[in-house]
Amino acid sequence: MIRASVMGAAGYLGGELLRLLLGHPGVEIGQAVSTRFPGRRVDSVHPNLRAQTDLVFSAPDELVRCDVLFTATPHRATMTLLPRVREKAGTVIDLSGDFRLPDPSVYERYYGVPHTATELLDVFVPGVPELFRDELAKADLISVPGCMATAAVLALRPLAGLVGPDVQIDARTGSSGSGALAGDGNLHAERSGAMRVFAPVRHRHEAEVSRLTGFDARMTATGVEAVRGVQVVCHATGDADERTVRRAYREHYGGEPFVRIVAHRRGAHRLPDPKLLSGSNYCDVGFAVDGDRITAIAALDNLVKGGAGAAVQCLNVRTGQSETLGLGFPGLHPL
Amino acid sequence: MIRASVMGAAGYLGGELLRLLLGHPGVEIGQAVSTRFPGRRVDSVHPNLRAQTDLVFSAPDELVRCDVLFTATPHRATMTLLPRVREKAGTVIDLSGDFRLPDPSVYERYYGVPHTATELLDVFVPGVPELFRDELAKADLISVPGCMATAAVLALRPLAGLVGPDVQIDARTGSSGSGALAGDGNLHAERSGAMRVFAPVRHRHEAEVSRLTGFDARMTATGVEAVRGVQVVCHATGDADERTVRRAYREHYGGEPFVRIVAHRRGAHRLPDPKLLSGSNYCDVGFAVDGDRITAIAALDNLVKGGAGAAVQCLNVRTGQSETLGLGFPGLHPL
Amino acid sequence: MIRASVMGAAGYLGGELLRLLLGHPGVEIGQAVSTRFPGRRVDSVHPNLRAQTDLVFSAPDELVRCDVLFTATPHRATMTLLPRVREKAGTVIDLSGDFRLPDPSVYERYYGVPHTATELLDVFVPGVPELFRDELAKADLISVPGCMATAAVLALRPLAGLVGPDVQIDARTGSSGSGALAGDGNLHAERSGAMRVFAPVRHRHEAEVSRLTGFDARMTATGVEAVRGVQVVCHATGDADERTVRRAYREHYGGEPFVRIVAHRRGAHRLPDPKLLSGSNYCDVGFAVDGDRITAIAALDNLVKGGAGAAVQCLNVRTGQSETLGLGFPGLHPL
Amino acid sequence: MIRASVMGAAGYLGGELLRLLLGHPGVEIGQAVSTRFPGRRVDSVHPNLRAQTDLVFSAPDELVRCDVLFTATPHRATMTLLPRVREKAGTVIDLSGDFRLPDPSVYERYYGVPHTATELLDVFVPGVPELFRDELAKADLISVPGCMATAAVLALRPLAGLVGPDVQIDARTGSSGSGALAGDGNLHAERSGAMRVFAPVRHRHEAEVSRLTGFDARMTATGVEAVRGVQVVCHATGDADERTVRRAYREHYGGEPFVRIVAHRRGAHRLPDPKLLSGSNYCDVGFAVDGDRITAIAALDNLVKGGAGAAVQCLNVRTGQSETLGLGFPGLHPL
Repeated sequence: MIRASVMGAAGYLGGELLRLLLGHPGVEIGQAVSTRFPGRRVDSVHPNLRAQTDLVFSAPDELVRCDVLFTATPHRATMTLLPRVREKAGTVIDLSGDFRLPDPSVYERYYGVPHTATELLDVFVPGVPELFRDELAKADLISVPGCMATAAVLALRPLAGLVGPDVQIDARTGSSGSGALAGDGNLHAERSGAMRVFAPVRHRHEAEVSRLTGFDARMTATGVEAVRGVQVVCHATGDADERTVRRAYREHYGGEPFVRIVAHRRGAHRLPDPKLLSGSNYCDVGFAVDGDRITAIAALDNLVKGGAGAAVQCLNVRTGQSETLGLGFPGLHPL
Repeated sequence: MIRASVMGAAGYLGGELLRLLLGHPGVEIGQAVSTRFPGRRVDSVHPNLRAQTDLVFSAPDELVRCDVLFTATPHRATMTLLPRVREKAGTVIDLSGDFRLPDPSVYERYYGVPHTATELLDVFVPGVPELFRDELAKADLISVPGCMATAAVLALRPLAGLVGPDVQIDARTGSSGSGALAGDGNLHAERSGAMRVFAPVRHRHEAEVSRLTGFDARMTATGVEAVRGVQVVCHATGDADERTVRRAYREHYGGEPFVRIVAHRRGAHRLPDPKLLSGSNYCDVGFAVDGDRITAIAALDNLVKGGAGAAVQCLNVRTGQSETLGLGFPGLHPL
Repeated sequence: MIRASVMGAAGYLGGELLRLLLGHPGVEIGQAVSTRFPGRRVDSVHPNLRAQTDLVFSAPDELVRCDVLFTATPHRATMTLLPRVREKAGTVIDLSGDFRLPDPSVYERYYGVPHTATELLDVFVPGVPELFRDELAKADLISVPGCMATAAVLALRPLAGLVGPDVQIDARTGSSGSGALAGDGNLHAERSGAMRVFAPVRHRHEAEVSRLTGFDARMTATGVEAVRGVQVVCHATGDADERTVRRAYREHYGGEPFVRIVAHRRGAHRLPDPKLLSGSNYCDVGFAVDGDRITAIAALDNLVKGGAGAAVQCLNVRTGQSETLGLGFPGLHPL
Repeated sequence: MIRASVMGAAGYLGGELLRLLLGHPGVEIGQAVSTRFPGRRVDSVHPNLRAQTDLVFSAPDELVRCDVLFTATPHRATMTLLPRVREKAGTVIDLSGDFRLPDPSVYERYYGVPHTATELLDVFVPGVPELFRDELAKADLISVPGCMATAAVLALRPLAGLVGPDVQIDARTGSSGSGALAGDGNLHAERSGAMRVFAPVRHRHEAEVSRLTGFDARMTATGVEAVRGVQVVCHATGDADERTVRRAYREHYGGEPFVRIVAHRRGAHRLPDPKLLSGSNYCDVGFAVDGDRITAIAALDNLVKGGAGAAVQCLNVRTGQSETLGLGFPGLHPL
């Protein structure tokens, strides 16, 4: 039985980690750490966990040793925090943005502050089993990519060699990506029904996509009406016809447990839509070809395959368990 | 030309007052007063007013004299504020809860604090032209009822004498009623898609309904997925058959410019639904009879007929203008 | 291993039955029967089942014997269908409205047609384990109540003896209750954001509530913005204080695996909200007391505890398996 | 007083035309023609027009002469219909797709059928006053562009000469663009919360954009959760810096009554969002620059500036009235 603890356990990613770990037959939860709510019941913050657990949040300084430690803590703060807690666990799986970009100058360009733990930057293995399964099996430091980055990476990876280097990514996201802290912009009356282009250019996840795919990726990001869910539509140029493209996707993902190819000719569900994926660990990928333009599409639940689910998948790989353990929920239709 | 100013102009009711007044041919706006944003452009807070006005928010201590002053300021604070600004205008139209209940003990029961301007309490005329048109025509102090109260009062008024004294009101509301200040509960990810019974018993608007209708009203209130819109479903018991009930509604509202009777036998739009009423000053009322049980239904836009629109309607009555001036927008379908 | 088949498998309840049965360790699916789509893959209609199954829909005349047969077929048609397929399975669990009301005159009053299989009417055991666990353990014919009826029955049952006989129920529901067939009224542009009182009086589920609780129940039903989810707010009158009421709920539901008491003093999640319950088999129940008025509230996912989940729970009880098998999904937050 | 009639008056665009014309001080409505509902009251189909009009739908063969005839009739059917009704009015303003593309081979490529009224194709003036004001002032045949085309054309027009010829357009749309006829894909339970890429490549509006801007436009279109509203995000490449781009927009739109430049540095409303524009005739345009990449954004209400509002604006231009007459509604916030 693996003992796993969660820092940042009161946030949305933290809550999703707790949900998945509580349903995981090979894991027992050590601690759920929260700076805001130490001493409070976990289910008072995550009401979907009522009757699932009597767990109470621990304060950060109460953290004790465990096998796997998840840090679902804020960007910019995690680079200070992580070196301090690293010795508490054999494996640390970080869900923040702080260890995703190995080049500190790139980090600074996208996060606006210098990195303060540069010595760790190139030790982390990206939490994408589809690309780094072997490395993850022995990694002690794992960094789960951003939700839109994971979607775009899985959409684009099969196109390497088939299209030119420039890709334009249009990402759309629900509101849960902004986290559980209230601000004027995510007030319901303001955010409901919005199509808010919050990053017209240079969304920071583009840097991760470029690094993990080799493409020169540009990303625009828009908040649309949804709580969960991310979709990316990626535009590239190349000579490959539809058959070639389909073959490339099949070769990459034919054996993957959590990537489905969704590229049908007709029907309301012919291409990836995150609406189907709430709570599930699938990333659906699809594509369409029009002459020399190739559109690649991916969808996932930002809190699951785009965060907590990918992290648990990494735990499974790292600890030698079945990769799908605890991740069997298929999603709901309709929802 | 009537000169009207708005206090609390940065809130949602304040913004709606400004929208209506900017489109009103008989009014010019004096000042838009805000404690939070003095010196900022009004359209930086109310982006739907871009290209409508170059108005800038004034600080409260910059308030100068005007003909009509609207106070769209918070409950509990307004009872202190209003006596101080009363002399700034010939007529004050208050949209807060502080002058709706003439009995200070009732106020204290529902608002949790003692009233500090009790001498004014029974001077205010309720801002319901359908009930108090003559009084409003000469009123210097007007108090617009709560949005759910207005809906329930208009739904129930025709039933006086036809049903027994006890009425149970089930009110549903969108999120804009909570105002423009962010809090954990109205974060989009929390509030979206919710059915949140925030007042299982004793919603404070029930006291206004009892006062204005003579019924003994009990009100439950639930937040449902919507930004604008209030609907009340009122349950009463009596002997009246459907024809009698319909006649009563016709007698009350046949000549009313802003109350429509919506009680059809079939169709998706057979009964009042606030979805049709966003931006409009209508209150739609309807009913159904089943033996001795009578269900009365009303819907309105909480920010218009449930607030700013009713206030402008009162201004029209008070200043002797056509009652519908500036209030002609009929609502959108579909939306 | 229990062999279970589903008739009406292309509908929303049918799809949810398939999802639950595919994840059930003690069941194998025999056939998924559909009159509309025989020969088509199940996942072309229920896209959340992609990669879960290669099952293909069977035509009704291809139905073969199984252990448990679920009929998720339309009201009025099922009373003709069921007698014909009854011999195909040891146990038939019906999710239609046709065998919920033992009195044929009540059926005719609420469904508008005479019942044509009256000889079966009083053989069916209601699919509410919380009330009929012992009978269900040996029942060959089981009828799952309507979604709003189950919610109201579970909300009201503990109040028997504590309040008077008259209860008024305000039910709210998402759009999936209307089924998977398109009509003008459930077009997205019409239904989105609506508060549609589709049954101002005499919703047919009230007859089930009266029968199963002994109360004289009246039900109003409103469609609100949601796909899944039902909430009922029930108004009753009595002398019991809050402590007595809480004790009654605890006595009834202390040992129930799928009923949670949610009645807190504060917080956005203080009372039952179906938003938390999508995909889960919980029915959350809560209450509030104001003098002699008692408000009881319940929430559930209409397709799970209000339909397919309750049916699987009944299968578990009937076949002597653990009652919670295959029903472990706790729901998502936020969603 | 201009006498205007509407064919296709029972559709969503038809309803919006009626709403705008009823509020237009210089127009009286002649007939509202519907094939589906002749003889029925207009407000039974467009419930927001209750108390606005007693108009009844006419059958198509009852059409009599008027000054301006709007054809809000289906694609592919209108090319047959229009030549037959052309003589009924001095000016015909068509809202269908049939007369937007002057080259019949392009029409056939995008609409899948040969054009049957090719002699009319190059007589129509595009209904974009911002580009064709002088021509519209004397046009007898006007063709209003597609909603996404209008948005993209207004977003891109100022960039001509500043960026290269290739533009990639990512369009997002609400559900009302699919019209008022129910189908499986626009059932609420299916469409709600969706991110549905219904045109991954080659959305037909791209042909209009290419024609009206001179760019080589490619368009992807996605249905997102909204009833009204279209947003386009256009990607282009060029050397212009932000100041140059801003100047170009100002030069084009400084005097335009219905185009606002929304390109701020911060805030939830810094870029165009259709959420603010429901019911209004504004097209908001904005942009951002990142090195050699330029992102242009536009938002509008597909039924107003993307259809009925643009058509009324054309009527105003054509009949020599003030261009803004009847189009004063500014939109709502919050909504």
